[in-house]
Amino acid sequence: MTHGNGSAAAEADMRWNGWGDPAKAKDLPLAVRTLLPLLLGRIRKPASAVDLDAVVLAASALDDADLAAFAQIVGTENVTTAHEARVRHSGGRSTPDLLRLRAEDQEAPDGVVRPASHDEVVACLRVSVERGVAVIPYGGGTSVVGALRPERGQHRAVVSLDLRRLSGLVRIDEVSDEAVIAAGTTGPDAEAQLAAHGYELGHYPQSFRYATIGGFAAARSSGQNSTGHGRFDTMVTGIRVATPTGDLELGRSPGSAAGPDLIRVFLGSEGVFGVITEVRVRVHPIPRDRVLESWTFPDFASGVDALRRVAQAGGGPTVIRLSDEAETAVSLAQVGRIGKALAKGASAVTVYEGEGIEHRRMRTSAALLAAGGTSAGEGASEKWLAGRFDGPYLRDSLLDAGVFCETLETATTWSNLATLRSAVDGALRDGLADAGARSYVMCHVSHIYPTGASLYFTVLASIRTEPSSVWSRVKARTNDAILAAGGTISHHHAVGRDHAPWLESEIGATGVRILRAIKRELDPTGILNPGALLPAERTH
Amino acid sequence: MTHGNGSAAAEADMRWNGWGDPAKAKDLPLAVRTLLPLLLGRIRKPASAVDLDAVVLAASALDDADLAAFAQIVGTENVTTAHEARVRHSGGRSTPDLLRLRAEDQEAPDGVVRPASHDEVVACLRVSVERGVAVIPYGGGTSVVGALRPERGQHRAVVSLDLRRLSGLVRIDEVSDEAVIAAGTTGPDAEAQLAAHGYELGHYPQSFRYATIGGFAAARSSGQNSTGHGRFDTMVTGIRVATPTGDLELGRSPGSAAGPDLIRVFLGSEGVFGVITEVRVRVHPIPRDRVLESWTFPDFASGVDALRRVAQAGGGPTVIRLSDEAETAVSLAQVGRIGKALAKGASAVTVYEGEGIEHRRMRTSAALLAAGGTSAGEGASEKWLAGRFDGPYLRDSLLDAGVFCETLETATTWSNLATLRSAVDGALRDGLADAGARSYVMCHVSHIYPTGASLYFTVLASIRTEPSSVWSRVKARTNDAILAAGGTISHHHAVGRDHAPWLESEIGATGVRILRAIKRELDPTGILNPGALLPAERTH
Repeated sequence: MTHGNGSAAAEADMRWNGWGDPAKAKDLPLAVRTLLPLLLGRIRKPASAVDLDAVVLAASALDDADLAAFAQIVGTENVTTAHEARVRHSGGRSTPDLLRLRAEDQEAPDGVVRPASHDEVVACLRVSVERGVAVIPYGGGTSVVGALRPERGQHRAVVSLDLRRLSGLVRIDEVSDEAVIAAGTTGPDAEAQLAAHGYELGHYPQSFRYATIGGFAAARSSGQNSTGHGRFDTMVTGIRVATPTGDLELGRSPGSAAGPDLIRVFLGSEGVFGVITEVRVRVHPIPRDRVLESWTFPDFASGVDALRRVAQAGGGPTVIRLSDEAETAVSLAQVGRIGKALAKGASAVTVYEGEGIEHRRMRTSAALLAAGGTSAGEGASEKWLAGRFDGPYLRDSLLDAGVFCETLETATTWSNLATLRSAVDGALRDGLADAGARSYVMCHVSHIYPTGASLYFTVLASIRTEPSSVWSRVKARTNDAILAAGGTISHHHAVGRDHAPWLESEIGATGVRILRAIKRELDPTGILNPGALLPAERTH
Repeated sequence: MTHGNGSAAAEADMRWNGWGDPAKAKDLPLAVRTLLPLLLGRIRKPASAVDLDAVVLAASALDDADLAAFAQIVGTENVTTAHEARVRHSGGRSTPDLLRLRAEDQEAPDGVVRPASHDEVVACLRVSVERGVAVIPYGGGTSVVGALRPERGQHRAVVSLDLRRLSGLVRIDEVSDEAVIAAGTTGPDAEAQLAAHGYELGHYPQSFRYATIGGFAAARSSGQNSTGHGRFDTMVTGIRVATPTGDLELGRSPGSAAGPDLIRVFLGSEGVFGVITEVRVRVHPIPRDRVLESWTFPDFASGVDALRRVAQAGGGPTVIRLSDEAETAVSLAQVGRIGKALAKGASAVTVYEGEGIEHRRMRTSAALLAAGGTSAGEGASEKWLAGRFDGPYLRDSLLDAGVFCETLETATTWSNLATLRSAVDGALRDGLADAGARSYVMCHVSHIYPTGASLYFTVLASIRTEPSSVWSRVKARTNDAILAAGGTISHHHAVGRDHAPWLESEIGATGVRILRAIKRELDPTGILNPGALLPAERTH
């Protein structure tokens, strides 16, 4: 089996202590700058972030023999303990991660190893077991749940296993609409290589520009087109995995009753059972047409009712997203209405692509109208589409300006959605108020199912001191509230280290025992991503 | 949580040594009797089956203390070692099972225990562990892969845990289109109780009239409406399981990234990890309209191409099934064309129910026409719909007449479908020919996906002597051929004991190790269904 070399990266290297292409970083728009004091009161500008060179790391715990062993597999040029590489692999892109990256003293992996094939991954795992080195699989580096934090567990060192050299379209079956993609391929690279054959995967999470196919699988990602194409789970038809004790090639047929679907053991395994090296996915011809339509609803509740009708009828839009009143107000403010009263009601975006657009739009529109919606033309939807991957740039600018900004998400059944939203909203507001911070909490629904939907929260707050520790307390309170109100600890951000203490509340003690039993079987010395998914203190 | 008492059974008790309601058993239709000698040559009538009273069983290995321990949980009236109950729980409904039931010496479980609630199941498992008694979970008794064979493993006795008293709709959420159904509820009972609320589950496998909701989940069933509503896996949103070492309640939200989806560990677990006691499922309003349309294609290959277009376009019919030339010929013969030349070409059935019928039909028809199909009116589809659960009655009559009849199934990608069909067809024909048997092999496609489809084979053969052992050899050769040609060992019949020796070829040694690790964790003494799913000799 040969891997393509991967096309040229579609994006520049990620800013080392923020999001995305450094050239695209920008100041806060005037509208936002005007709005923030109205929402949050006076904002205190924080100390500047340190320069990369000024970051202080502990010396690498890898010795010459470790480096030689890895180099023998991947070549000297693909093993490094260089300062910049270590810092760049020291975490993901949650707000706590970004705040850590602004400080002088930082933790980082002891080195970075870059295998280029499944066999090299297998060999790297063997060496890691032999030498007692923990391994953190690294894809696009976009985790927002602490999955990349350089925890070494009981091991004497920890390396970041950067998988981006496993890149490219391995093969495509144009009869079966299936493609095998190397796990380290980024979203844009995968789409570019599929597009050369006239195909699209159609998975567009906000992390799309940097995140990898293997990361989508390991973290159970869900993209903006999930209403049309389903979450990433549903796109996967096969998977190849390297574990410390054996390989797997799973997924012989599109439907099977040959025992439990073991692909599902690895979707969401977050690198603790093995390293995903290839993913087989359902693809579809690039859609020819796209239709956009924005909607407004009297309030969030009537919008939710509308989305429920659409989900339960099926055959609806490719994208549908509903912002609550708070998010609607700010979004409209940003597009130029600042100075007027903030907009009222709840706005929604719909996008239709692919087969039968007109029919799907007609049926969807009927459902939205019946629930009290009003069509609002293309404008807001076009704006959303143009900026849909840019949210994280805005967060960087807010952090620079001293505004704390973070997101979190959950999901539940339609009948429980209002209860869950209220519980999360209350935990966030009350938690921040108890810390003396003014806050502004927004919510949207962006992934719908016949039986329920996700809730995605964005929090802005003026936290005067120690934002990381304040947020840690607020987040814990919010997680407790989510589970008490019947929500899931994560709809699509995954568990990582940040949510691991709550996993047992979600799946029960017996569920955790199942995961630990699989972990013991596949990774008996516990080298893989210690402390992610399963709380560290009880892994062994 | 309370369970309903379950509505009156929609069907009479299953015939003890055959399929279904004994009152519905019937002689072979004239058309079939005329056709058989043409296909298979002279057929030798077999010895009559024994009467139930004449069956010889070993004495029950359960002692008074065992019976008292179970009776304390479920009541004396729900524990039995009676001859008839033991025979009735001695296997499923594969042709080898039916042939065994025609013989004098039979194997049966040592007793039957009938719990009525989740807590009673938990207590029965505790007693079974304490007393060293193996447990075979029993739903509708419709397994065709040996999942109910009374294997005791290393234990001193084995009981059948009949779950049909766990019956009824536990609760329904009419906002979220979700229902919780007790695992022992049969298909007709579930639909009757949902219908009282205006809802349908819409899962109609051929075993529908007897099989249970828990069985659908444990065996990863797929029903005739799978093109519209998906396989049973996709309907399940939650599950409650009793294991020997702890309970599970899984499925907090419609989508989640809280680690691997552990529901999928139990879908397809076939009672070896735990006993499923409740299943939460997506339901939908009972469809108001139904449209039927039959189609013919010049040959099976063009029909397959048509179904592929329909699957990849999406938004198609609720049911679509395509018979190959051999099946088409016999089906048409049965509906009255005998005496003429057998019909040519490949016939297909389509059924549309639910939302947007006209649009879906228009798009589907366009795809079928483009692939060379010709509309053939409603007739054949109506006939199929009327008799769709009756195939097993015909098999009983064939066995009585001395004709061996069995089915098997697999699935693969569209691009590999013809290769796989040819491999299976060849293994069946050649295997039977090598045993001196004339055979007639038919095939249909009844479950389609964007990336591939199932293949379902029906075999008729005149096997002169020892049909079970001849079939065992032919089936082994066919299983080898399926795996060598890239198919799955089962698309919807499951693994049971019959396919267990092939599981490692399907999921690999590491895959089997994962299943064994979960088994050891949840059922450390191995009381649950020994030898099913995982080959017995290596369970411990």
